[in-house]
Amino acid sequence: MTELRREPITRMWVGIETDSPKGPSDYLPFKQDYRPHESGGPCPFCPGNEGMTPPETFSIGKEGGGWSVRVVPNKSPFFHVEGDFDRRPEGMYDLMEAIGAHEIVIEAQEHDRNLATLEADQIGKGLLAYRERLRDLTRDRRFQQFLIIKNHPGVFNRHPHSHLMALPVVPKIIDEEISGTLDYFQRKERCIYCDMIREELSLGKRVILETGHFLVFSPFASRYPFETWIIPKIHSSDFHSIEPELIGDLSRAIQSLFGRFHRLFSDPSYGLTFHTSPVQARHRPEYHWHIETRLRIGLREGFEWGTGFFVNPTPPEDAAAYLRESE
Amino acid sequence: MTELRREPITRMWVGIETDSPKGPSDYLPFKQDYRPHESGGPCPFCPGNEGMTPPETFSIGKEGGGWSVRVVPNKSPFFHVEGDFDRRPEGMYDLMEAIGAHEIVIEAQEHDRNLATLEADQIGKGLLAYRERLRDLTRDRRFQQFLIIKNHPGVFNRHPHSHLMALPVVPKIIDEEISGTLDYFQRKERCIYCDMIREELSLGKRVILETGHFLVFSPFASRYPFETWIIPKIHSSDFHSIEPELIGDLSRAIQSLFGRFHRLFSDPSYGLTFHTSPVQARHRPEYHWHIETRLRIGLREGFEWGTGFFVNPTPPEDAAAYLRESE
Repeated sequence: MTELRREPITRMWVGIETDSPKGPSDYLPFKQDYRPHESGGPCPFCPGNEGMTPPETFSIGKEGGGWSVRVVPNKSPFFHVEGDFDRRPEGMYDLMEAIGAHEIVIEAQEHDRNLATLEADQIGKGLLAYRERLRDLTRDRRFQQFLIIKNHPGVFNRHPHSHLMALPVVPKIIDEEISGTLDYFQRKERCIYCDMIREELSLGKRVILETGHFLVFSPFASRYPFETWIIPKIHSSDFHSIEPELIGDLSRAIQSLFGRFHRLFSDPSYGLTFHTSPVQARHRPEYHWHIETRLRIGLREGFEWGTGFFVNPTPPEDAAAYLRESE
Repeated sequence: MTELRREPITRMWVGIETDSPKGPSDYLPFKQDYRPHESGGPCPFCPGNEGMTPPETFSIGKEGGGWSVRVVPNKSPFFHVEGDFDRRPEGMYDLMEAIGAHEIVIEAQEHDRNLATLEADQIGKGLLAYRERLRDLTRDRRFQQFLIIKNHPGVFNRHPHSHLMALPVVPKIIDEEISGTLDYFQRKERCIYCDMIREELSLGKRVILETGHFLVFSPFASRYPFETWIIPKIHSSDFHSIEPELIGDLSRAIQSLFGRFHRLFSDPSYGLTFHTSPVQARHRPEYHWHIETRLRIGLREGFEWGTGFFVNPTPPEDAAAYLRESE
């Protein structure tokens, strides 16, 4: 990618690849087939193939030598760290260079593991790697938003990994959440997520599990069947300020949730994103970091892409009951 | 569906099916497979099987007898016309009954046609059916928004058809467009879409084709590769006020565009939605109806669902050039 362009009506930033643009023939082999597939050949994330990736930006060692978690720059990044940070007009439109960071967190040595089958301790090392990289990246004042996104299986590789990005703009969904939470805070002087946690704990019907520090629940207006949020029970606006002693608790919550998904749907495809406060405004009283997860199950009607109108055939109360019972 | 629930932070309405909720076993056969498939058995939209659908709400006859276009209520509607229109709280949340209309427009007798292979005249009859149904539905004061959505192939049936819905709420994307256009209008006293049409016509590089009354172009911040918008050149806020004499021109523009998609991508899967003004506020000076189309090509990274951050590997200038040349 080389450009960020702003859609002038809804003011959403879109990344456009102008360096090596794809034409129709690049899309033909994948016609109507969204399913991920592995490329074949050696896996660049497996031990022994470290030379296939750029040098590490961070790693956690294994007892007895070698690595347990590695973080490397993405070989085909959406963003480049170098370049001019110029926002400029193009006619009536807005444009900027795609300055940013795009790293890959390789979460284990084992190729065929995922959040349901990794040890909680290993999941914790991945979370610690996120935290350390984000804390380092906060020093670059050009970055406005961090994104951590994990897909299982990955689009081109099923080796357990996540994408960690630092963007020079705040993406649409985070921007909307900030506006929504600010609006609520101005009326109530309380964080809406904190109120939601209280409400869900008192009702119980959408709660999946609770640990010492985290609540795992199905949100009231779930857009996707079995949509699940993981949220710290104590107010905190950004993930990278998490105390290391909470990481063990969070990794057990994640492992338990994905173990339940695994049992109910037998190795489903899933996605997970961290929602955390924009970088340069820390400790917001109105915003509350959390993780949103989505299972890729079922056929969607395809209405939501053009309308933002989601239809969900599984009420969150039912989803939470199935997940609670699948311990 | 029986409920509309409002997500409290971003205030998006989500449809939740509480009548016949789906559990994990309902999703297992479709694991990781989003591809549409036909159910087998007779097609309820083919001639001779009219008894398989509810009675028509509208139809256009064929010369020599029979029908050319039929509109029928959806057998599994998301919305019900009957019921109480009560908005109510549930704890801290907002809820309402899913009152509305959900009809299917059967756009031709032929099972294996689509917008690329139908005659322009036949496409025009489908457009006329949309117009007539919407004009009838405007009389119900409970409806706030019309949606017309077409997927090819349909999720469960490839017979050419569209979904036409009347909602008691304004879905998120339309709501954002209204806010964005209103904001622009307040600053400039001009419609932003009208300005965009002027800009695109003067630059030319993102124009695909132009007819007497319509412009077909690739938008500056295209979220999807080969995303295309079709827009009337003269300001008009709602589709259903279209003059019948413009329908022929629009159907030729649609047929030409989808013919180009067909040649470049050999019968691609696609979606198309009409963006039109909320029902109860007609003739908005700031809003401009249009059609947005999306090809379902390529593998997406899966970042956009959790972030609203789209990455597009084909710049709109390239997409427009390919489509212009594929006449």
